[in-house]
Amino acid sequence: MLSTLARYVPALEWGRTYNKDTFSNDMIAAVIVTIMLVPQSLAYALLAGLPPQAGIYASILPIILYAIFGTSRSLAVGPVAVVSLMTAAAVGKVAQSGEMGYATAALTLAFLSGTLLLAMGFLRLGFVANFLSHPVIAGFITASGLLIATSQVGHVLGVKVSGENLPEMLHSLFSHIGEINLITTVLGVAATAFLFWVRKGLKPFLRSKGVPPRLADVLTKAGPVAAVVVTTLAVWLLGLSDHGVKIVGEVPQALPPLTMPDLSPSLVGQLLVPAILISVIGFVESISVAQTLAAKKRQRITPDQELIGLGAANIGAAFTGGYPVTGGFARSVVNFDAGAETPAAGAFTAVGLAIAAVALTPLLYFLPKATLAATIIVAVLSLVDFSILRRSWNYSKQDFLAVAATILVTLGMGVEVGVSTGVGLSVVLFLLKTSRPHIAEVGLVEGTEHFRNIKRHKVRTTPDLVTIRVDESLYFANARFLEDHIYNRVQSDKSIKHVVLMMSAVNVIDFSALESLEAINTRLKELDIKLHMSEVKGPVMDKLETSHFLHDLSGKVFLSQYEAVAKLTGVPAVKAAE
Amino acid sequence: MLSTLARYVPALEWGRTYNKDTFSNDMIAAVIVTIMLVPQSLAYALLAGLPPQAGIYASILPIILYAIFGTSRSLAVGPVAVVSLMTAAAVGKVAQSGEMGYATAALTLAFLSGTLLLAMGFLRLGFVANFLSHPVIAGFITASGLLIATSQVGHVLGVKVSGENLPEMLHSLFSHIGEINLITTVLGVAATAFLFWVRKGLKPFLRSKGVPPRLADVLTKAGPVAAVVVTTLAVWLLGLSDHGVKIVGEVPQALPPLTMPDLSPSLVGQLLVPAILISVIGFVESISVAQTLAAKKRQRITPDQELIGLGAANIGAAFTGGYPVTGGFARSVVNFDAGAETPAAGAFTAVGLAIAAVALTPLLYFLPKATLAATIIVAVLSLVDFSILRRSWNYSKQDFLAVAATILVTLGMGVEVGVSTGVGLSVVLFLLKTSRPHIAEVGLVEGTEHFRNIKRHKVRTTPDLVTIRVDESLYFANARFLEDHIYNRVQSDKSIKHVVLMMSAVNVIDFSALESLEAINTRLKELDIKLHMSEVKGPVMDKLETSHFLHDLSGKVFLSQYEAVAKLTGVPAVKAAE
Repeated sequence: MLSTLARYVPALEWGRTYNKDTFSNDMIAAVIVTIMLVPQSLAYALLAGLPPQAGIYASILPIILYAIFGTSRSLAVGPVAVVSLMTAAAVGKVAQSGEMGYATAALTLAFLSGTLLLAMGFLRLGFVANFLSHPVIAGFITASGLLIATSQVGHVLGVKVSGENLPEMLHSLFSHIGEINLITTVLGVAATAFLFWVRKGLKPFLRSKGVPPRLADVLTKAGPVAAVVVTTLAVWLLGLSDHGVKIVGEVPQALPPLTMPDLSPSLVGQLLVPAILISVIGFVESISVAQTLAAKKRQRITPDQELIGLGAANIGAAFTGGYPVTGGFARSVVNFDAGAETPAAGAFTAVGLAIAAVALTPLLYFLPKATLAATIIVAVLSLVDFSILRRSWNYSKQDFLAVAATILVTLGMGVEVGVSTGVGLSVVLFLLKTSRPHIAEVGLVEGTEHFRNIKRHKVRTTPDLVTIRVDESLYFANARFLEDHIYNRVQSDKSIKHVVLMMSAVNVIDFSALESLEAINTRLKELDIKLHMSEVKGPVMDKLETSHFLHDLSGKVFLSQYEAVAKLTGVPAVKAAE
Repeated sequence: MLSTLARYVPALEWGRTYNKDTFSNDMIAAVIVTIMLVPQSLAYALLAGLPPQAGIYASILPIILYAIFGTSRSLAVGPVAVVSLMTAAAVGKVAQSGEMGYATAALTLAFLSGTLLLAMGFLRLGFVANFLSHPVIAGFITASGLLIATSQVGHVLGVKVSGENLPEMLHSLFSHIGEINLITTVLGVAATAFLFWVRKGLKPFLRSKGVPPRLADVLTKAGPVAAVVVTTLAVWLLGLSDHGVKIVGEVPQALPPLTMPDLSPSLVGQLLVPAILISVIGFVESISVAQTLAAKKRQRITPDQELIGLGAANIGAAFTGGYPVTGGFARSVVNFDAGAETPAAGAFTAVGLAIAAVALTPLLYFLPKATLAATIIVAVLSLVDFSILRRSWNYSKQDFLAVAATILVTLGMGVEVGVSTGVGLSVVLFLLKTSRPHIAEVGLVEGTEHFRNIKRHKVRTTPDLVTIRVDESLYFANARFLEDHIYNRVQSDKSIKHVVLMMSAVNVIDFSALESLEAINTRLKELDIKLHMSEVKGPVMDKLETSHFLHDLSGKVFLSQYEAVAKLTGVPAVKAAE
């Protein structure tokens, strides 16, 4: 009972060994992360089309729930760029940004997403995420980064950019190009340039001036805060908001409210597919970060429990005025680097943000949206990495095709179609590949008991025995292919008396393939050729024994290919041949 | 040029060697098949919801076109039961049976289906049919047979049965149960019973009376014709059509008309998905029959050319008042058994049917629909075979699941959803299986150079070296699974210094798996464990050589597992251990 509880509530485990040292380390990390999260949360809420406070609310209860149920010691949960973009795409279809229904639909999305993640966790379906291949994820993140950056260019210039894909966004941008606000543009471009410089140039600069590395690090991370403070002061002191500079405005000075998602069937129906995609993408992003950080400290992540942690976090977001959340890369790395030792650091961050929500929000009144957009642009452009195209091209044209399609479709048709295309195409390409397997004819490598492809290695064969190695599991999609191959082979060579199927690479034989093997056996029998098998794997043999096939087989099943050749051609003959 | 032509027009090949003997054999077969096809064609047209002559028209030009372009020497092309049912389901969604638009939509369906088949043929996509697994096909045919039989029970009882699935059909049947026509029922049940007896009992009866086997065969095949003649005479002489017995009525006495399919975008859009399903199902049914018959005479079928033959046949049907056609099982077997030697037999059958269309149609005026329904019921019940459930259950629960789902969904929701579910589920189950591969730890079988699973065989291992054999290609869906497995293994045993991945069953390493291998290599290096590989297949090695992986690999790549163990532990040690 208690161990079951401990499995679902990892906090019970690390909580027992919690002490003063871990507390102070967690505290320091929490302070640094809180400072970083305030502008970031506001910015991502803007990206999602929600009021700024939604970003802060989405970082409070979710982070505490993850601390209780999650297995990563360093992951920081909250709004992230890609999920914010996906939220905007999904919710934008059912309501207009700024309307009442919009924020409620975002709550519904978080609730659905949380429920799905919890269900997947209890059903132990964490492996489903594996169907998103690395190149597809890389392509999707890169394309999403570009979409996000493009959508924020509008805020930097002071014009409205709408649309779900690159052509729509560019069209919207250029058709409003005449409405550019000059002051906003100066402010936005300056903030963007400053943040780029902070990210790339500040640390080397500080180090060259003799600043200790640790301090240089903290100062670099405080860059966005500096940008927020300076531009807010500029707008306030110079009265720029009267000259068309869009500002954050009034943010309620309060703790997260208790909210209810709208669970009407029609809304749930419209948001279900986006919720599935957001859940899976969010989970994959989160678990990649968690595993990378865990590996550095030799800790372990339990994917199915991670689903429960993220599910709880999203349900928390749904009831406290947030929107879908997941483990973020930047915030988690900062948390890790700052020395967080347990998820308690996350809970302290939540306290910090709660204080910010109550005390700091009036100070954000004059914060220009252009500054927030600048922080997003600089953050997401680090996600954009086209090198995956070159790397996958060099290694495998199939993977390249999947990446290229994911990037193009995501840019051209939006995030939902993009990621679905990537996953679908990867699966189809894999199936096509396995439906036409590599089939090699093998012979004995002299001086060994090892058999290799006659086309690649110098090997010994005998004319009346042909050994065929199928380099794939035998299943419905390739069963007929093997039949055709064998029939063609024995028709072209009348001296063949024995066909040995070397099964070392056959991991499954399904019912269709079994029927094909039966057909091959019958056909070869009619031609006076015996069918044998060698190196059949244990699990495959277990299956075959439940069928009539072994009983009907004209030849034998040999433990090893060497034994097959030795017995069928006579050991001395082989030895003499050596 | 000429050889290209010969590839696409197989008739040029067999035409060159055509002589008097083949002519007379083909002629005899054609006469027998024609006699069988007249009632069958009318019956299938009824099943498809079309006027009776459509069935005959669909057997004339299509059979000639297939004779020119197809590769099977025995296949007889025309309307078949399952495709007729699918036609009724598809066309029933866009028009009411009996309306003008209904027959035109059937032409459109044939045209689309023909175009798709031709396109697949030219693009050499014949292998796509392999994605329909044997058990799914068997389940689908069985369920379709039940649906067809149920739909025809109405005609036997003289009531109208409509619906696309079993619940709808049964509901429709029972709600009209009060309208049963007694005379029709007597006629229909008698015809059904007679035809069952002809199929099961006539041949043994005739043989026991000393009738020669060949004649007994022909008489048995003439059974449906006898039923047609007797019931038609009964209706005519007794004036039963005035007492509510539904008859075929007036059939135009003419050669097939020239017709044009309606290619309006909206109709094409509605019929495209059904056309794809009909094409694939029809192709699979046809090629199975063709291959079975070809194997008996050691002939070869070319799947991609078969697509062209069937495509041409369907386009022929579209322009001559027919509907989708394919190679039929019953008619092809009769053709084969009757001694047809070349596709010319098909052409002669077409001539026979053309004569029937011109001369015999007035004789069919009083033919009761109940008789046609009886011939369908008896024909399709031979397709119903639930043994696939038991056989697949015994061999593989996964295959059983796919079959059971196909049968249930086809019966419960109709043919289109049924077959799609079967194909989709097979693919998903295969992917799930490969995403959690069998991973074995192997050791040396004493006295050999052969390595097997330590859990199944008595093998020798050394404590500082662990060999892991992955029984699956490494790709995105299982890459992380392997990572987890290896990390868990090395964490549980601190004495390990070498990990050898035995790659004999790894047929592909995709980009995701490559990244996982790189991660494994890095992680093991940090733990002072060397990663080696053995028995890497040629094509896999070629790929790896295009990446940095081999350069970064902490250990070595060995040709054979034996070599790996010998080199890493020292040959004498292994020898001494023996």
